[in-house]
This record gives sequence, C-alpha cells and structure tokens, in this order.
Amino acid sequence: MIKAPNIAAFNPPRRILMGPGPSDVHPQVLAAQAKPTIGHLDPLFITMMDELKQLLQYAFQTRNEMTLAVSAPGSAGMETCFVNLLQPGDSVIVCRNGVFGERMRQNVVRCGATAITVDNAWGEPVSPAAVEQALKDHPEVKFVAFVHAETSTGALSDAKTLCALAKKYNCLSIVDAVTSLGGSELRVDDWGIDAIYAGSQKCLSCVPGLSPVSFSPAAVEVIKARTVPVQSWFLDQSLVMAYWSGGAKRSYHHTAPVNALYALHESLRLLAAEGLEQAWQRHNDMHQLLKTGLEPLGLNFVVAQESRLPQLNAVFIPEGVDDAAVRKQLLEDYNLEIGAGLGDLAGKAWRIGLMGYAAKRENVALCLQALQNVLVKSA
Amino acid sequence: MIKAPNIAAFNPPRRILMGPGPSDVHPQVLAAQAKPTIGHLDPLFITMMDELKQLLQYAFQTRNEMTLAVSAPGSAGMETCFVNLLQPGDSVIVCRNGVFGERMRQNVVRCGATAITVDNAWGEPVSPAAVEQALKDHPEVKFVAFVHAETSTGALSDAKTLCALAKKYNCLSIVDAVTSLGGSELRVDDWGIDAIYAGSQKCLSCVPGLSPVSFSPAAVEVIKARTVPVQSWFLDQSLVMAYWSGGAKRSYHHTAPVNALYALHESLRLLAAEGLEQAWQRHNDMHQLLKTGLEPLGLNFVVAQESRLPQLNAVFIPEGVDDAAVRKQLLEDYNLEIGAGLGDLAGKAWRIGLMGYAAKRENVALCLQALQNVLVKSA
Repeated sequence: MIKAPNIAAFNPPRRILMGPGPSDVHPQVLAAQAKPTIGHLDPLFITMMDELKQLLQYAFQTRNEMTLAVSAPGSAGMETCFVNLLQPGDSVIVCRNGVFGERMRQNVVRCGATAITVDNAWGEPVSPAAVEQALKDHPEVKFVAFVHAETSTGALSDAKTLCALAKKYNCLSIVDAVTSLGGSELRVDDWGIDAIYAGSQKCLSCVPGLSPVSFSPAAVEVIKARTVPVQSWFLDQSLVMAYWSGGAKRSYHHTAPVNALYALHESLRLLAAEGLEQAWQRHNDMHQLLKTGLEPLGLNFVVAQESRLPQLNAVFIPEGVDDAAVRKQLLEDYNLEIGAGLGDLAGKAWRIGLMGYAAKRENVALCLQALQNVLVKSA
Repeated sequence: MIKAPNIAAFNPPRRILMGPGPSDVHPQVLAAQAKPTIGHLDPLFITMMDELKQLLQYAFQTRNEMTLAVSAPGSAGMETCFVNLLQPGDSVIVCRNGVFGERMRQNVVRCGATAITVDNAWGEPVSPAAVEQALKDHPEVKFVAFVHAETSTGALSDAKTLCALAKKYNCLSIVDAVTSLGGSELRVDDWGIDAIYAGSQKCLSCVPGLSPVSFSPAAVEVIKARTVPVQSWFLDQSLVMAYWSGGAKRSYHHTAPVNALYALHESLRLLAAEGLEQAWQRHNDMHQLLKTGLEPLGLNFVVAQESRLPQLNAVFIPEGVDDAAVRKQLLEDYNLEIGAGLGDLAGKAWRIGLMGYAAKRENVALCLQALQNVLVKSA
C-alpha cells in the first residue's frame, strides 16, 4: 500500500480579489453553496433549476428556451457553443484582439472547421469595418465569433453592431460574455445574439466552475439540423437539454454540480434584487473612482477611454517597477490580489478587476492606497 | 428590459442520500467548500493543489505524475480519457454490461475511433474470457475500456484480471472507477491501470462536479506521441498539465473550480485519516448489514453474490409495488432518497447506495425501517 499522506486542513485567508477573476464571492453565495446536497433528480432541486433558468434569462435579457449553466468553467462554455453549432468544413469569422479570441480560433480548428481571423491589436476593440470586409470577402462564412469583454486586455467591443452585421450577412453570432455578464450592458434578444457563454466567477461573483450559456431559436435550429454528431458527449446540448428542460420528466445526463448551482442561484438572486441596470451603473461608477485614483500614481490604461471595460482595468506597469514583487507584496501585506498581464501583456501590465461584489468603494480605496504604498517603496 | 424575477432563497432540506449518487456529503466537506475563495494562481492555492495531487495518488494507489481532478463531473472525466488517448481510426474494445459501458462506446465513436463491443447481460460482470477472445480476434486493438463498478446495475468487474489481459495483448486499459474509488479495492499501479476516471460525488462523499483522473507513464507516452490534436481544448491534458504540474510556474489554462477543490481536498483528507482499506471494509460491512435486512423484505438482488458492489445495491421491485410512489413516500416522509432503475432496469429495480459518508449504521437502519413501513402500506 502507498501510505496515506498526512495533510492538514486547508484554511485559506480572506483575500480581496481584484484580479481578472475569480472575484470576491458574496458571503450569502458561499453560505448557499454549503447547504445540504440533495439529489440532482429531487423534485425540489428541479424546482430550483427552473428558477435558475429564469434568473439566467433575466441576466442575459433573453427569452431563449435553451438557457442553462454548463457544469464546467467558461472555457467549457466556449467549447459548448462551438462544438454544438459547427460542423466539419464550416467557415467561421473569428475576431482576435486578445487571448480569448485566439482560444476561439483553436476551438474552431478542433471542430474541423475553418477559421477566418480578423485581428485587432491587443487593447483595441474588434473593428466592425474589418468584420464587414471579411463577411464580404468570404460569402461561405456561417458564423461570426467575437469576445464582448476581452479579459486579457480590458477592451469592450460593440456587440450590438457586430451581431447586426452577422445577421446582415446571414450568419449566426457567437459571443464570449465571460467577463461582461452582470458588469456591462448586454441584451441578448435585443442585439440578436445567437450563442453566448459566460462565467460564474466574474461579475456574477459566484464561485468558479460554471458557465451560463444561451442559444437563440435560430441557433437551436442549426443544432437540430446537424448531420454529424457533436464531438463531445458531455457538452452535447441535445442530450443536456433532456435534463434541463424536461420539467418533471427530466432525464439523467450527468450528475449536476448541485452545490455550485445553489451558489449560482443565490448570486443571480442578488443580481436580480439589485437590478441589472443598477449593477452596470455600479461597475461604471467604481471604475470612474478607480481611474481617478490610478492616474496620479502614474498608472496609464492599456485601452483607450471609449472602449474601456469598467470591470477589468489593464494598466501599464511603470518602467523600473518589479511586476512580481509588487503583486507579491500586495498579496502578503494587504491580502489584495490584482492580476498579472496575460499573453502579449505578460510582464507589461496589471489587470485590476472590479467585478460583481468586488466592485465597491472599500475595495477601490484599499486598492489605491495599497498600490500607492507599495509603489513608493519599490521606487 | 425583461423584468427581474422575484425568487426566494433556496433552502434544501437535509436529505439522507442513499441513491446512486450524489451521496451524503460530510459536514466538514460542506464547510471546507464555503471557505473564502482565493485566486487560482495564489501561492497558497497552488500548495493546496499539490496536496490534492498527493491525496488523489493515495486514493488511486498510484505514483502516476499525471493525477489530477478534471474541473467537471465524471462524464467529463470519461471523455478526458478517450479524447486524449484515442486518435481517429484507433480500435478499442468496449465492454458493456450497463449504462456506462454504452456511454464509453458513444465516446469512442465521437472520437472517430472504432468500438469493438464485448457485451454481458445487465447485472453480470464483464467476462474476461470474452474480452480475451475479442483481443485474439482483433489484433489491431489498442485499448480495452471497461467499467469497474457499474452504477446502473451494481456489478463489480475484475479490474485486475482485465488489465492484465490488456497488457498481455499490448493494449492500454481505460477504467471507469466513478463508483468504485474509495468504496472498493482499487490499486492503479499494482493492477497496471493505464487511464482511470472517477467521480467526487460517490464514495468520496464530496460535492458533485469533479472527476479525479490518473494516467500511467505508458498512457502519457501515447498522449505525447499524438499526431492529431485532442478534439477538446478544455479537456486537452497536455494543456491542463501546464497548470497542474507547473509548480511555482503554473500557467493559466482555465479558472479552476476553487471552492469545489477545497471540498475534494477535505473529503480526501477524511479518506486518508480513515485509511483506504478501512473504508473498503466499512463499505463491505454496511452492505452485509443492509443485505441481511433486505432479504426478509422480499427484496432480491439484481447481481449474484460474488459480483455485488457493496456501495450500490440494486434490488428488484416486488411485483405489484408502485415504483415511483414508494420512492416519493420515502423522500417525503423520511427525507430518504433511494435511486430509480436506469436503462434496462428502469421501473424494475431500485438502487440503494451506501457510499462514503452515507455507508453507516444509522443510514442502514433508517433505510430498512422506512422501506419496511412504506412497503407494508403499499402492499
């Protein structure tokens, strides 16, 4: 026998999470998650799932029937959209202006489809004109995929315009809303978004591990008309929906992550109680406060004013400042986590998140004071 | 705007979970899960992940480096094994003696590989002789896949013999241990298992949503030698391992389900404290107690004595008894969940789980008394 390791209980400190996610989780959400586990086919659980669907429809501003939470993180939500909609040989316009656009491209390729990339510089939004040109150049294209809120740079793209363009050229839109849902204006039905995925751990301030998704009736038609089976059994929505939409007759697909779904239910209830428009406004207000304090510290934004995400503030690291040392000190001395740069911005930028429950005055004040103290020391 | 739904907080009752899973979650595990969320790249979290790996290695009885928890339920663990090991055109022997063998076949087909099925009746274990015949008949076969503990029937197959057979014919073995891990003898290294996946919500008594997996060095070689990329980006172990094995240099793949991993850490600590062999013995002891009480109630086992799983007791529903009414009454009057039959056994059998924290005297006593009361009423 391999002997049992002797390992102590894990007692994490109370951090203040102002990175790119996970964000601070509301205490009510943590408490909801710790409620007793019940069966995933228990009639009471099924009632909870029906409520969860209504709450997700509110958060997405959609009446889409196929609205649910994938039982895995945002990356699996991304994959859910691509594997269910794409068939081998399909062509997809993929807009890349950061890490997650490139991840979309990798998904497209792994589906045996062709990605036509439209690139913008890191920190810029997706260019509608470039997308329209690609649509004109490639009449074979069936889908337009882009990231609404690029977590790697903090750039917000114009989802309404991009989706309208997709429609104009008879394409379906696939939208990454991992960081935008609950933090930035997002209207799935009004904007005509066909497939969308998000994350639980950003502006919803829920625990990480779930990905809300929604598919328009047109997207559902594409799924129903497939001739090639979805390459993932786990993510096959035609199977998953037998559980999520079966009402009293729900049939087993996989065991739902019961406690994580309690947490999502509670976090969406908190969002509904605050109101979606009020939550968007709060993210904006806190961003303004943070911005006003960052500039005197010599911290300049990666993204131009007009495309800046309130919930993800990427700022350039001043010359001569030790990236890792500053983040380490913020964590050790203040229990404050800010995010490192990712991809092209690794070592060059910090990402300061103001997401969900973390988007509040006390966090902004702490972050500004702590940053000032640490930067003075490291100068 | 679509209006915010007005939904009350969800307050699940305290059920006693004696179905096919999720099983009762230990209060310490629920409490661990509710600890404050910290970042998935926080140095303290990385230490916790290293401990988690050691604890998983103990539970699996393996020294495999590639041992981790997939950030999604057991079905995703299954898919992880198939999509990483198989390439299009590969041949796989898939043993089917219940729902999950058939699910394996569906995974194989969706990988573009060929499944050679070896079938046994529902309730029977996999026949090693039939597997050996298939190995002789199909020299092109590269993998042998089977379910160790069939949750749909309660049959235990002889994993040691089946893996030795796979080796004899130069094949790798892929083993479903969703229901066996922590409940039945399982020795990954000694038995020469090459790829294995399990579930958090069965005999580990953790919350549902995670799938422990482990790959042998030979399996890792196959993954490294792939010429076709893994069709799933989310489940691609060559990418995931950069996070799980990077030590201080862990790089971001997807946001780990932080709180669920706290829970798994705690549930595995409880298993290590009890001792694996002691846990196997406890499951057996409780099964004997349950069995002794079920027989006088006229409840006969689906599986023959010698292949019975202690943790999943499938019994035929007596003639004239209303399946759904009995389960409903157990749930409503006693807060006791037992499982319905699945697949071929739907409406014909109940599945009584004795898994992990639920495998204890008080649960056996309650279950027997409640069943007796309800059956007398319904007779």
